[in-house]
Amino acid sequence: MNAHTPPAAAPVVAIVGATGAVGAALIHSLTQRNFPVAQLRLLASARSAGRSMAFRGQPVAIEELTEDSFAGVDIAFFSAGATISRRFAPIAVAAGAQVIDNSSAFRMQDDVPLIVPEANGAALDAAPRIIANPNCIAAILTTALAPLHQRWSITRLSMSTYQAASGGGAEMMEELRASTRAHLDGEEFEPKVLPHSYAFNVFSHNSDIDPDTGYNGEELKVIAETRRILAQPQLPISVTCIRVPILRAHGISLSIRFDEHVNTDSIRHALRGAPGVRLVDDRTANHFPMPSEASGEQDVLVGRIRDDLGDPSGRSVTMFIVGDQLLKGAAQNAVQIAEYLRARAAA
Amino acid sequence: MNAHTPPAAAPVVAIVGATGAVGAALIHSLTQRNFPVAQLRLLASARSAGRSMAFRGQPVAIEELTEDSFAGVDIAFFSAGATISRRFAPIAVAAGAQVIDNSSAFRMQDDVPLIVPEANGAALDAAPRIIANPNCIAAILTTALAPLHQRWSITRLSMSTYQAASGGGAEMMEELRASTRAHLDGEEFEPKVLPHSYAFNVFSHNSDIDPDTGYNGEELKVIAETRRILAQPQLPISVTCIRVPILRAHGISLSIRFDEHVNTDSIRHALRGAPGVRLVDDRTANHFPMPSEASGEQDVLVGRIRDDLGDPSGRSVTMFIVGDQLLKGAAQNAVQIAEYLRARAAA
Repeated sequence: MNAHTPPAAAPVVAIVGATGAVGAALIHSLTQRNFPVAQLRLLASARSAGRSMAFRGQPVAIEELTEDSFAGVDIAFFSAGATISRRFAPIAVAAGAQVIDNSSAFRMQDDVPLIVPEANGAALDAAPRIIANPNCIAAILTTALAPLHQRWSITRLSMSTYQAASGGGAEMMEELRASTRAHLDGEEFEPKVLPHSYAFNVFSHNSDIDPDTGYNGEELKVIAETRRILAQPQLPISVTCIRVPILRAHGISLSIRFDEHVNTDSIRHALRGAPGVRLVDDRTANHFPMPSEASGEQDVLVGRIRDDLGDPSGRSVTMFIVGDQLLKGAAQNAVQIAEYLRARAAA
Repeated sequence: MNAHTPPAAAPVVAIVGATGAVGAALIHSLTQRNFPVAQLRLLASARSAGRSMAFRGQPVAIEELTEDSFAGVDIAFFSAGATISRRFAPIAVAAGAQVIDNSSAFRMQDDVPLIVPEANGAALDAAPRIIANPNCIAAILTTALAPLHQRWSITRLSMSTYQAASGGGAEMMEELRASTRAHLDGEEFEPKVLPHSYAFNVFSHNSDIDPDTGYNGEELKVIAETRRILAQPQLPISVTCIRVPILRAHGISLSIRFDEHVNTDSIRHALRGAPGVRLVDDRTANHFPMPSEASGEQDVLVGRIRDDLGDPSGRSVTMFIVGDQLLKGAAQNAVQIAEYLRARAAA
């Protein structure tokens, strides 16, 4: 919108799955980004109804999610898993809401845009009823790739991830804390969320594995969604998703192949100041992106930019990317989508 | 040696750097592998002299390392850093000892064999005075690669590592424990070993960075040593070394390119039962190599064997490898070298 357009009325916003880790992050991001909210409705399962959560200094009562929850709602953020989204998103749309869905339910559906504003926000020129928010790794990755993808032709991605407990929800974060404390105290710990200990441990991502290819669900999402966001449906992508014992920021060790030699200084120049990106690439101080510095941050941190010595063609560059899984990897990207929709509506 | 050859007399063994994390692991590995020892000499700095450490149920007094320490020593294990090795290994050799050196001091020296018994033990046919024990990642990696390298032609390696605190010594392990406890208790922690917090954090390997290439010392070692062990001096290797908050087992997310299509079943078949390797590759149970299961284990765990979907040529296969950094990554490999030397001498 330009300076002479009056702002649209502040919307009524609903959060489905308000009590989860992403739900709490949505409340945080709405506040942090000063998103206009006329009224906030917090929806969750019956067992949370009656409790309340704070928003902008006021308590908001949690309501049970029902088919009647969406009357008067303008924007509904869904973060309660694919089953809830498949059932209730069409109901919210029928009630007149725009849905921004953090689950995987609609991400590969042709008529549902899958959006990372920095990478493909321009694709949001219609007024879609449902917009899908990508998988956390795909969102963090494509934010960092966007300024490169806009300038050079990417012909291959190869990555291994360092994923935090938050991707498994508040329960997995608590299991990491509790099992670590037990380990330090020399006490037994009976895992509840995982089939093994999380304390001081690293393991292959705990999503279901495709028996034919051996790829897990997370990896298949990263491949399919990254291709869709970059509009390169055949892009070769190598990915191994690993969980590490950290709380809420995901790391990605990445090699990018271009169709030509690209100087690492040009890469740094393209990344510096790009929307949503912060360059952290200090060789002298050995200071590169770390989860401890990315947690709670809106920007994706990018560094360790080097020629990939494993590609004799000289066309590959490596980098290490870290982003807050709950913010850019989930809630913040959803709020950014809402900002985009609002700006489009006002334009 | 065959059944009719009398065993050689048990050697006098010295450990230089006995009080470090690898020193303790050397004592453990000598016992675990039942290596014959006539007498054990524990050598360390003056400040540890007078203390004692247990070996096979008996206390062994720690002596100060001096130029006179090696009289009568048959095998000297060095694990006190490159500076100590450069100064004292030639003295040990002059005194008649064979040196097995865990530092980087001699690893790239042409007349010093760099040995991982499973991969290139056959190179030990002379009776070298100094044998170099590789970098931990190179040792764990080449153990897993050996049965593949023997059968197929490897044309490229691409990896990201998940390295434990133990690679930084006992002090770094203690810093991980102490900083994690402080984090859980909500207390401030002043890092001593690292320039930042280790608790629930991931960071680029803390070795010095080559300002020209941006590769750190650990990565350059992995490249140079892996090429040397595999006797492929030009092998393209992509590597990013990352520390994760785990205590003593290193993980490697690896893609191997061959010069032909290699079926993943053939890879599994080659790895199953290979020396020093344990296949952990259960897709149904989502059970793959984990540091929690590799710690304290002599074998390197290998799994997540899949076609690399990022290589359209169909010639690349991914895997995830985990090995105990203090055992196969350091002390155990050194003891295995000593076993090899002993077997050669008796043959």
